Amino acid sequence: MAEARPVNFGAGPSALPESVLEEACKGLFNFKGTGIGVAEISHRSKEFTSLVADLENNIRTQLGVPPTHKIIFTQGGGTGQFSAVVLNLLARHRLLHPDLSDEQRVLDYVITGSWSKKAMEEAKRLGGGSVHIAVDARKKSKDSKSYDNIPAHEDFDFSADPALIYYCENETVDGVQFSDDVQSPASFPFHLLPAGGLWPLVADYSSSFMSRKIPRIADHAVIFAGAQKNIGPAGLTILIVRQDCIVDVDAAVKLGAVPVPITMSYKTNADAGSLYNTPSTLSIYIAGLVLERSKKLGGVEYFESVNGRKAQKVYTALQEGEKKGVYRSKVKEGSGSWMNVVFDVLGDNAESRFLAGAEALGMKALKGHRSVGGIRISLYNAITEEQTDRIVAYLKHFPTQIS
Amino acid sequence: MAEARPVNFGAGPSALPESVLEEACKGLFNFKGTGIGVAEISHRSKEFTSLVADLENNIRTQLGVPPTHKIIFTQGGGTGQFSAVVLNLLARHRLLHPDLSDEQRVLDYVITGSWSKKAMEEAKRLGGGSVHIAVDARKKSKDSKSYDNIPAHEDFDFSADPALIYYCENETVDGVQFSDDVQSPASFPFHLLPAGGLWPLVADYSSSFMSRKIPRIADHAVIFAGAQKNIGPAGLTILIVRQDCIVDVDAAVKLGAVPVPITMSYKTNADAGSLYNTPSTLSIYIAGLVLERSKKLGGVEYFESVNGRKAQKVYTALQEGEKKGVYRSKVKEGSGSWMNVVFDVLGDNAESRFLAGAEALGMKALKGHRSVGGIRISLYNAITEEQTDRIVAYLKHFPTQIS
Repeated sequence: MAEARPVNFGAGPSALPESVLEEACKGLFNFKGTGIGVAEISHRSKEFTSLVADLENNIRTQLGVPPTHKIIFTQGGGTGQFSAVVLNLLARHRLLHPDLSDEQRVLDYVITGSWSKKAMEEAKRLGGGSVHIAVDARKKSKDSKSYDNIPAHEDFDFSADPALIYYCENETVDGVQFSDDVQSPASFPFHLLPAGGLWPLVADYSSSFMSRKIPRIADHAVIFAGAQKNIGPAGLTILIVRQDCIVDVDAAVKLGAVPVPITMSYKTNADAGSLYNTPSTLSIYIAGLVLERSKKLGGVEYFESVNGRKAQKVYTALQEGEKKGVYRSKVKEGSGSWMNVVFDVLGDNAESRFLAGAEALGMKALKGHRSVGGIRISLYNAITEEQTDRIVAYLKHFPTQIS
Repeated sequence: MAEARPVNFGAGPSALPESVLEEACKGLFNFKGTGIGVAEISHRSKEFTSLVADLENNIRTQLGVPPTHKIIFTQGGGTGQFSAVVLNLLARHRLLHPDLSDEQRVLDYVITGSWSKKAMEEAKRLGGGSVHIAVDARKKSKDSKSYDNIPAHEDFDFSADPALIYYCENETVDGVQFSDDVQSPASFPFHLLPAGGLWPLVADYSSSFMSRKIPRIADHAVIFAGAQKNIGPAGLTILIVRQDCIVDVDAAVKLGAVPVPITMSYKTNADAGSLYNTPSTLSIYIAGLVLERSKKLGGVEYFESVNGRKAQKVYTALQEGEKKGVYRSKVKEGSGSWMNVVFDVLGDNAESRFLAGAEALGMKALKGHRSVGGIRISLYNAITEEQTDRIVAYLKHFPTQIS
């Protein structure tokens, strides 16, 4: 035990497999036999460009990304994409409907937590369209002010021909996630979108990317994710973009669209094979190692089954403790995230005793996000089932210490 | 020799000191004794935020950044800043002069090579102001179309009250650099800027940052640099911004300025201590190691003296070969870069023989940029004087093989 690394249940940047870290050290000195380290080699070298191609191929194969969609690597994280999706999809809408006013150019936002709210606020900042809240989960919450649920399908209200429809698949801070079972009441209401349309559907998958299959992936216009949860270090952002959303933004600007910084233009990045400017090469390399390892383990299907079991074990232990009055889940049953489990520990000083006890057992980074408090257990791909069993045992043991 | 790593003379991403790579490997597993790796730890942990503070302090102390200026870390590289400086400084100008037309809002660009040209083109793309070419070095070149010189001071023509004045201190592709001796005819003509004014002077220092002192640093509004030349892996961008240029961009947008994506707002990043969103943590960490090492070696003064000697040795060998008709410098004498020495090897197949011979001696990545061809020797901080002596010996030996 004393020799082992602590278990890092942090919400991101988050744990990486030890075998990947070992491989990364080798690559830092000698990348693909060049004698030059991966952080030192030109991003235009054949060794590096083939790494980018392999990473793309790994994502495409494991997630089943259809040929209608391009995969783009960029920088700036999810927050950078809050702006970029708005700018690129407003440009697309402008080219399709040049004569609409900004008022008529509607951006539909599904608000289920802190991150979708932040994305919506950025759309308001940038202008060029008008924001419509398709649903606000706070209005459906227990106390009318928490993000504790995925609203029922009948509560969603989409616009007729919006420039984008935005949702965040997993809310890292609030621990709320759409179900991947399209029959579930907590699923995204795809059936409310008219069949056959090229809908401008945007999904932030930052904290669940590669943790399980993406339902109806082909129906999305843009899926984006920062790497720093399931697949690598911070600094890499992954985009899956349907080709009709890769538009000539400058042509749209001539028609009155909001100007798009060149590094945010999907077309510029796609045309350059994600090498328009120097990317975060080391982050790309480590993400490549993570996904090579995933492939060997059985791909996203493997992680889907492991992650499903991990989440079930944790939620079951939580419910047992809830019955004993020790824990209180922050999230409505059925809306809980597989990736980030958030709850309160009840009683005076109980939370700090919970954290200290976990720390003493080598389990770290369990404090909830500063905006909501409580405990957050993040169960990303690099957290093994054995490590999950350790926190589950602790969740079961902690109540017995209290009584 | 067979055991040693090859010498990487690439133009970036470029060589890193071996001692830094060794330290980085340790940090990948255990950052500051936490037992958690640096790529896995929260960017909001006290360990990581103190690393950011140390990095900032190292830059401030070694470069002598005055208290009037903030240091900001961000993503997106120099190309991201081509957009960000325009957007932030147009916002500043709008707040200072709300009633000017876009036509009257002038952006002065000093064009001395491929990168300053690209930056100017981005300003044109974004709009909101009108670009004025303060000088175009091509017009002063031997063949009227190459970037081979720093124009004479009398050729510069600055506007009266521009929104920005932009120059690129070192042109990585073309091998042209402003002199750091303000008395030199190849220096930036600071004396043409009125004394005492808070001039909106922007300098791209991407490929010379931390290689020597920055002349008249306090007179700059913004200095920016990607890390991937002298101080670390790609993915980190460093900004030095005078505080009057950190403005409320949203207030300017209300007055008609071009909207600024939130990750590009200097104020948002400065107010959040460069942690508004998750930064490229691993790149920041390695840059920190590089600058700790620099400090121990004697800081920027140390590198300034070593880099000066390195450049002099290479240019001297080049001139000798030029007299023999073997080499031809691509750059006018006095305008040559310390960081990137560019030249042609004359004669049939001579260039590929030069490259093959260097490769056989373990010297790599000497091919010039695809847009200009020829040879480029990059002499960033991580290239030692001993390694420079090896390429100098080769530069002297190669002509004897030909004759």
